[in-house]
Amino acid sequence: MDVKPRLPRGRQFFANPGPTNIPDSILKAVAHVSIDFNDPAFLKVYDAAVAGVKRILKTQHEVFLYTGSGHAAWEAALVNLFSAGDVLLVPETGHFSDSWGKMAKDFGLGVRTLAADWRRGIDFAELRGVLAADSGHAIKAICAVHNETATGMVLPLAEIRAALDATDHPALLLADTISSLGSMEFAMDAWGVDVAVGGSQKGLMLPTGMSFTGVSPKGMAAHAGSTLPKSYLNWTNMLTRRHKSFIGTVPTSLFYGLEESIRLLEEEGLDEVFDRHARLGEAVRRCVRHWSGNNGPSLFCLSPDRYSNSVTAVLMPEGHDAEAVRRIALQTFNVSLGGGLSRLGGKVFRIGHLGDLNEPMILGTLSTVEMALRLAGVPHTPGGVNAAIAYLAEVAQGS
Amino acid sequence: MDVKPRLPRGRQFFANPGPTNIPDSILKAVAHVSIDFNDPAFLKVYDAAVAGVKRILKTQHEVFLYTGSGHAAWEAALVNLFSAGDVLLVPETGHFSDSWGKMAKDFGLGVRTLAADWRRGIDFAELRGVLAADSGHAIKAICAVHNETATGMVLPLAEIRAALDATDHPALLLADTISSLGSMEFAMDAWGVDVAVGGSQKGLMLPTGMSFTGVSPKGMAAHAGSTLPKSYLNWTNMLTRRHKSFIGTVPTSLFYGLEESIRLLEEEGLDEVFDRHARLGEAVRRCVRHWSGNNGPSLFCLSPDRYSNSVTAVLMPEGHDAEAVRRIALQTFNVSLGGGLSRLGGKVFRIGHLGDLNEPMILGTLSTVEMALRLAGVPHTPGGVNAAIAYLAEVAQGS
Amino acid sequence: MDVKPRLPRGRQFFANPGPTNIPDSILKAVAHVSIDFNDPAFLKVYDAAVAGVKRILKTQHEVFLYTGSGHAAWEAALVNLFSAGDVLLVPETGHFSDSWGKMAKDFGLGVRTLAADWRRGIDFAELRGVLAADSGHAIKAICAVHNETATGMVLPLAEIRAALDATDHPALLLADTISSLGSMEFAMDAWGVDVAVGGSQKGLMLPTGMSFTGVSPKGMAAHAGSTLPKSYLNWTNMLTRRHKSFIGTVPTSLFYGLEESIRLLEEEGLDEVFDRHARLGEAVRRCVRHWSGNNGPSLFCLSPDRYSNSVTAVLMPEGHDAEAVRRIALQTFNVSLGGGLSRLGGKVFRIGHLGDLNEPMILGTLSTVEMALRLAGVPHTPGGVNAAIAYLAEVAQGS
Amino acid sequence: MDVKPRLPRGRQFFANPGPTNIPDSILKAVAHVSIDFNDPAFLKVYDAAVAGVKRILKTQHEVFLYTGSGHAAWEAALVNLFSAGDVLLVPETGHFSDSWGKMAKDFGLGVRTLAADWRRGIDFAELRGVLAADSGHAIKAICAVHNETATGMVLPLAEIRAALDATDHPALLLADTISSLGSMEFAMDAWGVDVAVGGSQKGLMLPTGMSFTGVSPKGMAAHAGSTLPKSYLNWTNMLTRRHKSFIGTVPTSLFYGLEESIRLLEEEGLDEVFDRHARLGEAVRRCVRHWSGNNGPSLFCLSPDRYSNSVTAVLMPEGHDAEAVRRIALQTFNVSLGGGLSRLGGKVFRIGHLGDLNEPMILGTLSTVEMALRLAGVPHTPGGVNAAIAYLAEVAQGS
Repeated sequence: MDVKPRLPRGRQFFANPGPTNIPDSILKAVAHVSIDFNDPAFLKVYDAAVAGVKRILKTQHEVFLYTGSGHAAWEAALVNLFSAGDVLLVPETGHFSDSWGKMAKDFGLGVRTLAADWRRGIDFAELRGVLAADSGHAIKAICAVHNETATGMVLPLAEIRAALDATDHPALLLADTISSLGSMEFAMDAWGVDVAVGGSQKGLMLPTGMSFTGVSPKGMAAHAGSTLPKSYLNWTNMLTRRHKSFIGTVPTSLFYGLEESIRLLEEEGLDEVFDRHARLGEAVRRCVRHWSGNNGPSLFCLSPDRYSNSVTAVLMPEGHDAEAVRRIALQTFNVSLGGGLSRLGGKVFRIGHLGDLNEPMILGTLSTVEMALRLAGVPHTPGGVNAAIAYLAEVAQGS
Repeated sequence: MDVKPRLPRGRQFFANPGPTNIPDSILKAVAHVSIDFNDPAFLKVYDAAVAGVKRILKTQHEVFLYTGSGHAAWEAALVNLFSAGDVLLVPETGHFSDSWGKMAKDFGLGVRTLAADWRRGIDFAELRGVLAADSGHAIKAICAVHNETATGMVLPLAEIRAALDATDHPALLLADTISSLGSMEFAMDAWGVDVAVGGSQKGLMLPTGMSFTGVSPKGMAAHAGSTLPKSYLNWTNMLTRRHKSFIGTVPTSLFYGLEESIRLLEEEGLDEVFDRHARLGEAVRRCVRHWSGNNGPSLFCLSPDRYSNSVTAVLMPEGHDAEAVRRIALQTFNVSLGGGLSRLGGKVFRIGHLGDLNEPMILGTLSTVEMALRLAGVPHTPGGVNAAIAYLAEVAQGS
Repeated sequence: MDVKPRLPRGRQFFANPGPTNIPDSILKAVAHVSIDFNDPAFLKVYDAAVAGVKRILKTQHEVFLYTGSGHAAWEAALVNLFSAGDVLLVPETGHFSDSWGKMAKDFGLGVRTLAADWRRGIDFAELRGVLAADSGHAIKAICAVHNETATGMVLPLAEIRAALDATDHPALLLADTISSLGSMEFAMDAWGVDVAVGGSQKGLMLPTGMSFTGVSPKGMAAHAGSTLPKSYLNWTNMLTRRHKSFIGTVPTSLFYGLEESIRLLEEEGLDEVFDRHARLGEAVRRCVRHWSGNNGPSLFCLSPDRYSNSVTAVLMPEGHDAEAVRRIALQTFNVSLGGGLSRLGGKVFRIGHLGDLNEPMILGTLSTVEMALRLAGVPHTPGGVNAAIAYLAEVAQGS
Repeated sequence: MDVKPRLPRGRQFFANPGPTNIPDSILKAVAHVSIDFNDPAFLKVYDAAVAGVKRILKTQHEVFLYTGSGHAAWEAALVNLFSAGDVLLVPETGHFSDSWGKMAKDFGLGVRTLAADWRRGIDFAELRGVLAADSGHAIKAICAVHNETATGMVLPLAEIRAALDATDHPALLLADTISSLGSMEFAMDAWGVDVAVGGSQKGLMLPTGMSFTGVSPKGMAAHAGSTLPKSYLNWTNMLTRRHKSFIGTVPTSLFYGLEESIRLLEEEGLDEVFDRHARLGEAVRRCVRHWSGNNGPSLFCLSPDRYSNSVTAVLMPEGHDAEAVRRIALQTFNVSLGGGLSRLGGKVFRIGHLGDLNEPMILGTLSTVEMALRLAGVPHTPGGVNAAIAYLAEVAQGS
């Protein structure tokens, strides 16, 4: 390659779909001196933060928090609800639905996959068929990844709930909302989600390190019968503690960040936050669609009703390596794009557009991708950024 | 009580034995913008930090890291090494040996406790007896809490290793070094520790959120035969990943702090760090011993050879509540002391003296405790701080 | 000296009388990204901060702010009020009254000094005499240093005002409140101060870099007739600008700190802030008085009614060097004390006790000084810290 | 206007030509706790920073530093060099040459202006003529603004030096390098600059609050004869002090930032820093040139050999208000542009492209300006960003 790396200067554009940009005010809040997690001053912050997480999950139910990444919360959902041999249904979305399924197998659970084309998503008629056919209710739960970070596609949870209801199936509905919460509409109680899995490092704009699960009363009932061994993540143990969460030391500094995160999200208004993600996501898609002319890179997702507003996967034309584009963006222009995961490695790159993001940030990112395409010799129709500019100006006009 | 709370002003003195004071340079390092955990710039920091952790553990073996608190690393040690029904021997030290034992039971492990007076610690002859008697080697491992944070006592690990060797017992030696690592001598390989459990928030002076285990080859061999279910904490899964640790997102910001933590510890020199803790710990003990005249509060630990240099538990005279002392220290003077845990609740308060600490910090703390004793009407011989001053000046003279 | 320096660990105790300790929340506020100083979002912060400075000065009049240190504000007062040949009366307090006088001479002003013993302060009868004798009103202004940072003595401004009133003297009253504002009672309007000079780096707990002058209508009238050349500090120029202050770029980041400083001071309440300084200052004095027995170091100030509550100068016994004490405190214990200025060099050290300070901080400082006295071989009666502890506990009891 | 303001989200793009973007590492460095400015640990940082400033100025001579903004350094140059009645020649560049001239008049200096069209800059033949005609050497100095921040034009200093040399004129050459230093080539000694005026808040990427002057031996000789009154800014006073700069308290926290600033500039290499500014500046100009088709906004500067690489002024088409464009950029897209100063108010907006800047930042900015032009109904040829993208990709290819 002729493109020389440069020493990174200016702030890095972090367009990786997770973790995500952390606002300065949250970075400062997190840089908090140590405090006793039983200090009344901390407990006030703590209780308010937990209440805020419930408002963002849109739930009235229990929330359990973990010092851990999103995978810890996945595991918490599994070990707290199930017993060895229980069967789960996993609608295939991509890398993350696969991973959650594999984790379930690690705990001796049966996993049935509702297969899907990664570019189109599952067929809901098929889902209803599977549920209807399960008259013995062998399926104890559906593990649904609301927003598949690896493909940039949404799995409509309300339709899963509708399929369960239509078939009178008692399976629990578990939803991974890690890369959707705080970026796209999510409504735990309204959608009948029994366990919602979230993390700190995406729409909540915090460093990685804390995850949580909202749990419905039906989920708590299932927990009571669960026999998988557990301790660090055990909800029953947690309920005996003052914090009703966390076994061991509480990661206090993240709560100062969470307090600020909730303030920022609610100052803007969740609906406005979602609108912002929607328009920035659409700008990215219009840009990619423009590039795709002339045999250029194209949107990986082929189902427009399932576009993600927090991440877009861009499929490279045959014979071109996504990693070359990423490398130029990072090494020459200080822009971090996401790579393709598992079977998509090298085939797609991903643009994260979630969290603390605005128009100039996404337009600077798209401009850089266009430079990188050019420099990597990837065919494309130049001018994608124009399409994004035109769209975003139009939205601002109307607003 | 007549003592009115005041709005906290000045920096809080954090004399709670964990988490501990975080130096400004670490707070700033941790306030790091997001970075892709596969970014070469991060990997350089990461690899160096892991190497640094090995130097601090004094091990050449594997180290696995977790997004989690110390309890996650406890759990990692258990689920990676054992199978249901395996029997562990837990030398009783106090609250934390109890808790680790309870966690083992949560996983269906058999737990035999080597009982001890919490103020004196176990009898090593008794330990040798137990091991010698276990000719069938039912005991798979000893779970030893190196420094019992709840009582301020050390459990000499080299003597446990000696007991195992003397009895030719093949049990693994697991050591919780959470509140000793980076504050007191710890030598994983030299002491024949098979699994060393550490955390970020004590001697490493980081926020809570990361923990780790060093694992000897013998530990890895045991891991190969372990059948307890695991996923998030599974060492085998970890070894397949670039980071050889962490399932899921890596908590990148803590690594920038860890890089600085290691730099600080090694700039001072580990031996000098231990010396500093030793002299500050001894200053605390001389102060408490002075107070104890006249029926005052006294050192909880009755075995001078097992004093902890990172935390001191102070036993209240009969009829006096440790919580009253803590409340005054916190609410009137902005000093955070540790409370008594489990059966020691109200009976002791604890002075943490670990991490980023110096003479004026500990003397300001002791001065405050003396004020709080006075204000709470607790009998004591005034002038404990003088004893500490005299001692610390003498040490500085000689140094 | 036998006392070996050590690598500084723990937070430095900054007991230097200026600048002073900056609370973490102010440090974070000051670390603010750049903002246009005409941005409406900044102007809101700016206007509120200026209003807050007026409340702290206790004035309804103009306040002009400068990018500059306290000396810039001294100069601003001189060049904006006077014309070459004007005569000023400077009550001698110590190093800083001398320096202000020298600055006046740099601008061709006449300076008459009202001489005083630095340990006792001026005689007010003498002041009245001088004013009464000046029947031609040659004296255009009195330049009074409210709190002499070099000696730890207060010059009672209300008595100066009384002397002016009693003699019907029209001289302006200029007051340097740099090391008193925000730490000790100061009331610009009530005391008839015409120009009050303040800075960012003492009671306001900000970094060095901004200073200001409150100006009475009488001061503004004098300004109208002033002919000394000026530009950067010219009040008339400033009044034409949106900010009514600052020639050139506004130091925006300090205003985010100032916003937080005012919030902290008013959250606590100015009277409570003054009380806190009073009790911490008294604790220092009781400690020093205790040491002074046995031919030890003693309070420099010999007039108890003029003790400063923000700084205490401690006079060494004959034949002992204050710098040796300071060096040990700094190099071995990481405590920064102030040194003696000009003719007091080596003869006194100074303990700053202003700003964001609490009991454990001052007790840790005093404990360290006691260690340093011991190590430097300075005679003293040990136990000064006890006296401070007893006093501070007693005050807390009563409060 | 139809364009609704939005709550600012994401990081603000600060494209205002001063102050400029502060890198995170400098923000953190500046958030430094108080330190005694005579503390050896600080003096080490201080001395190294002053040496670094000399390397950046490319001078071997004296440098004096001030707690003050750029205007303080302007004033320092004037009061330290001249006496009332001295005559200065000011080559007209725009708002800032006017302002410096006005300041000189405030000090009773004679000011002769070498008039120029603000869009084209002075004529050097005319300059030579003026100097040749001044056979009596009434002109004591030329006050040259190297980079006129208000118009985005450079005044070639080497040509001024050449004109002085060609006419054997002994006038001092004073250069304001406030908005060029650290962004564009500047060589104090090689160019025969006698006094170079710089500030913290532009190419050095620091907060506003410190400024400085490099002074040649010829400048020091002139200083010796200067009779303008001075104190706070007096070089002779400064030379008596340990720091050889600063009257009064030293703004220590800025020096921690300066240490990091110098490290960043030298890590990249000054020539590479200048190249980066050159290519980003050219990208802006290509974009504006594209817009200018179709009667759109155009480059204010009409002399391509005098383009500034740190700021570009963009001239609005007749009948369109630059403030409307700025308002939309700020309120709807969180991008801060500079406005027109003095007679250019409303006629131009300015894009700052200096300091810690990279390709995506400038492309995001230009994209936003294009949206704002569209929304404000300003005629322009869309696609300017494309031109910038094409150019920057081409440069990266070649590099």
